[in-house]
Amino acid sequence: MSGSPPQLDPEIAARLKRTPDGLVPAIVQQYDTGEVLMLAWMDDEALRRTLTTRAATYWSRSRGEYWVKGATSGNTQRVVSVSLDCDGDTLLVKVDQTGGACHTGDRTCFDADRLL
Amino acid sequence: MSGSPPQLDPEIAARLKRTPDGLVPAIVQQYDTGEVLMLAWMDDEALRRTLTTRAATYWSRSRGEYWVKGATSGNTQRVVSVSLDCDGDTLLVKVDQTGGACHTGDRTCFDADRLL
Repeated sequence: MSGSPPQLDPEIAARLKRTPDGLVPAIVQQYDTGEVLMLAWMDDEALRRTLTTRAATYWSRSRGEYWVKGATSGNTQRVVSVSLDCDGDTLLVKVDQTGGACHTGDRTCFDADRLL
Repeated sequence: MSGSPPQLDPEIAARLKRTPDGLVPAIVQQYDTGEVLMLAWMDDEALRRTLTTRAATYWSRSRGEYWVKGATSGNTQRVVSVSLDCDGDTLLVKVDQTGGACHTGDRTCFDADRLL
């Protein structure tokens, strides 16, 4: 017999305020330099995997699948801390980023288009 | 005769990818310490006001109105820079925050609920 699938800690799940799609935005920050690297999205399962494996795992809205950051590129994110904001609708994930966080090769997703 | 109302620079507006509600999440960061203060939301007009006044202005999803951060609390955000991410769906707003950014009085909205 197999057990039931693992679930996100119910005490955490109860504090999350999700979009209609069941997602919460995750701000990803380099833990030591403070660089904001990217914004990604998590559902309960992506958050559970991130907390338990410490390999940053997101939900890809475009591909409709879980996505372990760096699984194909090698540019992994080792998770240092995860915090939930005051109204439960945003996560702050501090990581140690290997290489560039951006799919363009840039260090962060905010390097290329400065408006002000 | 009055002129037409001011509009966000069309070249910027063309690069924005908005939610179905017409919004873009804005990560707000203290420009010198790197602290991530909060996440808020902007529509085109909030972004236009932010860029032109350098007083951080958001769209309140709960109240359905524009919101100049600190207008009532005094905890204003002077905008230092604004960047758009690689796929045009997230803003990074670097500010100089007066006092606490969080409505709870905390410095940031991520101070109180650490999950990992």
